[in-house]
Amino acid sequence: MTYLDEIIKSRRDTRHFTNDEVPDAVLKKALQAGHWAPSVGLTDATRFYTIKSAEIKSAVKELFLEYDKKAVNLTDNEDQKASYKSLKLEAIEEAPLGLVICYDRSVLNNFTIGTVGSNEAVKFSSVCAAQNIWLSLTEQGYSMGWVSILNYYKFKHLLGLPDHMEPLGYFCVGKPATNYENQPMLQQLNWKQKSEVPSVTEITNLSHYKMEIPNFNDQIVSTDFSNALQYKIDHKSKPKGSLGVLESIAKQIGEVFQSLEPQIINPNIVTFAADHGIANHGVSAYPQDVTRQMVLNFLEGGAAINVFCKQHGIALSIVDAGVNYDFPTNANLISAKIGKGTQSFLHGPAMSQTELQLCFSKGKEIVSVLAKKGSNCIGFGEMGIGNTATASVLMSVITGLSIADCVGRGTGVGDKKLIKKNEILKKAIENYSGEPDLNSKLAYFGGFEILQMAAGMLSAYQSNMLILVDGFICSVAYLIAFKINPGVKKNAIFCHCSAEQAHRKLLDYLGVQPILQLDLRLGEGTGCAVAFPIIQSAVVFLNKMASFESAGVDQE
Amino acid sequence: MTYLDEIIKSRRDTRHFTNDEVPDAVLKKALQAGHWAPSVGLTDATRFYTIKSAEIKSAVKELFLEYDKKAVNLTDNEDQKASYKSLKLEAIEEAPLGLVICYDRSVLNNFTIGTVGSNEAVKFSSVCAAQNIWLSLTEQGYSMGWVSILNYYKFKHLLGLPDHMEPLGYFCVGKPATNYENQPMLQQLNWKQKSEVPSVTEITNLSHYKMEIPNFNDQIVSTDFSNALQYKIDHKSKPKGSLGVLESIAKQIGEVFQSLEPQIINPNIVTFAADHGIANHGVSAYPQDVTRQMVLNFLEGGAAINVFCKQHGIALSIVDAGVNYDFPTNANLISAKIGKGTQSFLHGPAMSQTELQLCFSKGKEIVSVLAKKGSNCIGFGEMGIGNTATASVLMSVITGLSIADCVGRGTGVGDKKLIKKNEILKKAIENYSGEPDLNSKLAYFGGFEILQMAAGMLSAYQSNMLILVDGFICSVAYLIAFKINPGVKKNAIFCHCSAEQAHRKLLDYLGVQPILQLDLRLGEGTGCAVAFPIIQSAVVFLNKMASFESAGVDQE
Repeated sequence: MTYLDEIIKSRRDTRHFTNDEVPDAVLKKALQAGHWAPSVGLTDATRFYTIKSAEIKSAVKELFLEYDKKAVNLTDNEDQKASYKSLKLEAIEEAPLGLVICYDRSVLNNFTIGTVGSNEAVKFSSVCAAQNIWLSLTEQGYSMGWVSILNYYKFKHLLGLPDHMEPLGYFCVGKPATNYENQPMLQQLNWKQKSEVPSVTEITNLSHYKMEIPNFNDQIVSTDFSNALQYKIDHKSKPKGSLGVLESIAKQIGEVFQSLEPQIINPNIVTFAADHGIANHGVSAYPQDVTRQMVLNFLEGGAAINVFCKQHGIALSIVDAGVNYDFPTNANLISAKIGKGTQSFLHGPAMSQTELQLCFSKGKEIVSVLAKKGSNCIGFGEMGIGNTATASVLMSVITGLSIADCVGRGTGVGDKKLIKKNEILKKAIENYSGEPDLNSKLAYFGGFEILQMAAGMLSAYQSNMLILVDGFICSVAYLIAFKINPGVKKNAIFCHCSAEQAHRKLLDYLGVQPILQLDLRLGEGTGCAVAFPIIQSAVVFLNKMASFESAGVDQE
Repeated sequence: MTYLDEIIKSRRDTRHFTNDEVPDAVLKKALQAGHWAPSVGLTDATRFYTIKSAEIKSAVKELFLEYDKKAVNLTDNEDQKASYKSLKLEAIEEAPLGLVICYDRSVLNNFTIGTVGSNEAVKFSSVCAAQNIWLSLTEQGYSMGWVSILNYYKFKHLLGLPDHMEPLGYFCVGKPATNYENQPMLQQLNWKQKSEVPSVTEITNLSHYKMEIPNFNDQIVSTDFSNALQYKIDHKSKPKGSLGVLESIAKQIGEVFQSLEPQIINPNIVTFAADHGIANHGVSAYPQDVTRQMVLNFLEGGAAINVFCKQHGIALSIVDAGVNYDFPTNANLISAKIGKGTQSFLHGPAMSQTELQLCFSKGKEIVSVLAKKGSNCIGFGEMGIGNTATASVLMSVITGLSIADCVGRGTGVGDKKLIKKNEILKKAIENYSGEPDLNSKLAYFGGFEILQMAAGMLSAYQSNMLILVDGFICSVAYLIAFKINPGVKKNAIFCHCSAEQAHRKLLDYLGVQPILQLDLRLGEGTGCAVAFPIIQSAVVFLNKMASFESAGVDQE
């Protein structure tokens, strides 16, 4: 054994000291040895504080006692507890000298070599210094005891250490009164046996673990695109799937635009307004004239859809698909009027096949213009007194669900009116003697705004726009579009499940999940507008969040 | 200078080696010296792994290069960057022998002397071993180079180390090709000058500091305002109640601010981060270090909460409530650190009553500063590996619901881990033998960030701010605040019901309705941020929509 080995082996964590003072020269020599310890990036962050004051020692002892008591309660069993209580684990008041070894973490405020993987290297340098000091004291016939059983927060305050100065503990320094029979004190007292030799294992094989980092080229073949997009979503600095619905929306939008960095451009909500002959049979809480009044309210910017669109920077277009009123020609209104409201479908068709085809062409044209103007996201809304009745009947005749399953209170029908509404609509369906094909049913039971919306959705799909679907009536328009071309589903985002009971049934039928359930039952496209920032959140997280790799965050 | 001093002084962090092999005897002697290093509580937790395989060395080198590149980007200026790039900071492939020094943190699963104040003592013992090995190698004419520039997470996986084995770094061992002119290499290359002598200061006076215990008084609430507010809501140009949840939110905000035209001013989300001792028991899918990594991600603006706050113009503050890591003092972080993570509550209290009170005073202070700066709306978020476990236990002991009702998957725990999580938490609750009062339970099972959030909510209530409650963990903080002062409910808006099954149960227990159900399970305050525009929609419709009268629309 070399001289160095002798020192290293005889170094003890000492808790029993004589009364001898520690000469300044001994301390100086020991601290110099500490100073020669490694210092990551040459930061020189180790700081030494000495304590001789009995008052301070006594205050530190108090801190020890407080945590020692805490430790007693942490022991694994009663025997261990008794054994623990018998141990002397410090010599704070007896040791002639107190030493506090700290590291100054403010060095990390500047670039520090060797801390990019973990800044613990700074504190480790100070621990190396502690070990050097221990060895030097041992060589000089002195020793040290490391007290770590402390409330460090209070300890720092007690010593008046600045926030960035972090103590490794309180070190008792003095001349040892015993060498514990040349072994650790805890071994001498049979607390534990230290193993004779170190644990050493050779690692011979690389563990098989790979991180595939794909290459996000601009031109990814489309079969690989989906995987690349999912990879990007999964590798954002968050647990996989933890953004829930936002992740599905991001995936969908990325797929629609075939882009890993999709953008919503010039979002537009289009609110289609029309009147319904069936409204004359008392199926609504409001007189038909309210359709007209609300269109004027839209044009003046006072309706809910106006304020929400303004809130989110969404352009708003209002379409007169067939309101029972002649608006001035200079109104800021897209005119796509098919007629002054439909006929009541109680005893006959709401519109002719020609009107139906007109609805399709006009609805298509409106959206196609917006697409050409550069919008890639369109929300559909509607206004029309009586149109929940129309929507309910359409849902029933298209899905085959009973009318009772498809009827709701609209925007505020009371109990009595609801029974009446049910009866009338049931009768209307029973009265139908037309062909079973979709177009025949659509002409018989349709509404101008609902059919224009359906056509608009198909057009939006053709132009590869995002299609934002609003509440119940809008979902019935989607149902029609979907029956004509199921591909539309790929581009459709369902914004809100309204308070209409039929709406939940319809969404289930369609197998889709809405973003919001806020008990809205207003229409106008308000569900689209209110949900829009959430759709944007999906885009924003996909584009702006750091990945695990770029943030240096460990993955599961 | 003694022989020991000579060795200590000539020890070098070596990056230049000859081709000479390291004889087994040399290594054996050095590791034995390492083994004689102090071992806190005689845990013998240090483990040595040797590496000779070129394949493994090459893979480790890859890891170094990856993080070295990252370090280049962290340099303070261009000169420093150039200088840094010229440095040789490792010899992974050239050094004949690789050594990995680890500490086995699973020793902490049993009672360990000396770790009650901080469990860092375990790793410090291993650092002392490293220093001994360094000295022994130096004495024998060999040397070592400590490589800490690594992604430790990948490093562990590469070597196939078990989860509880924590490496201090990769150590290159061999015969030195130079002694760098008897000085640190970084000094030889003029990177920095090492000071000649250590920094030593004597502390002569006790520092005086006091802890204020805050008092949460109930506030007197004016109630004479409701009718006017409800009238305004009902007379907007829409059917009564048709804006659903937006109407209730508008009502609540009007009531809180006692205004018919309420405004949200300087909204702020505060994300509290802390570590949890219970995380050492495998209750999370992620290692504890992820807390630190995510805080850095917050500070760099790359996390989900950053991008959502930016999207909506919400200010974001990050609080270090007790992360097990020393952040640089100049970090853009509110320091409210109570400790480096809580203790595990499996066998003993997570924190002391003093620490609990500190959580209260610090949490209160943080929010009170924001209120003084003029914010009237604060969202609460959190980050802390293991904190769903803490939250579950708190929910169970406060509500009396069974732990099974209160446990969830956190941010991604699998089936097996979920069963284990359940068992551990059940055991922890059974182990509790403290008093039945709230404060005793909070100290025993609490988390620093959760308690600071609870205190912050009480403070926000005192300052009459809107309180936005995020997901499950945040709702548990609310539960605590609510138990202390039920008045807080008036100001609280529940933003999101998370995918944690326990969250729905908790919201039912509290009798509250969340705005969103988006399957988010991320925390950070993301639920608050994503819901914020919807809260704003409530304010906007109340302030901006036309009334029936002003729009000339007929009422029901």
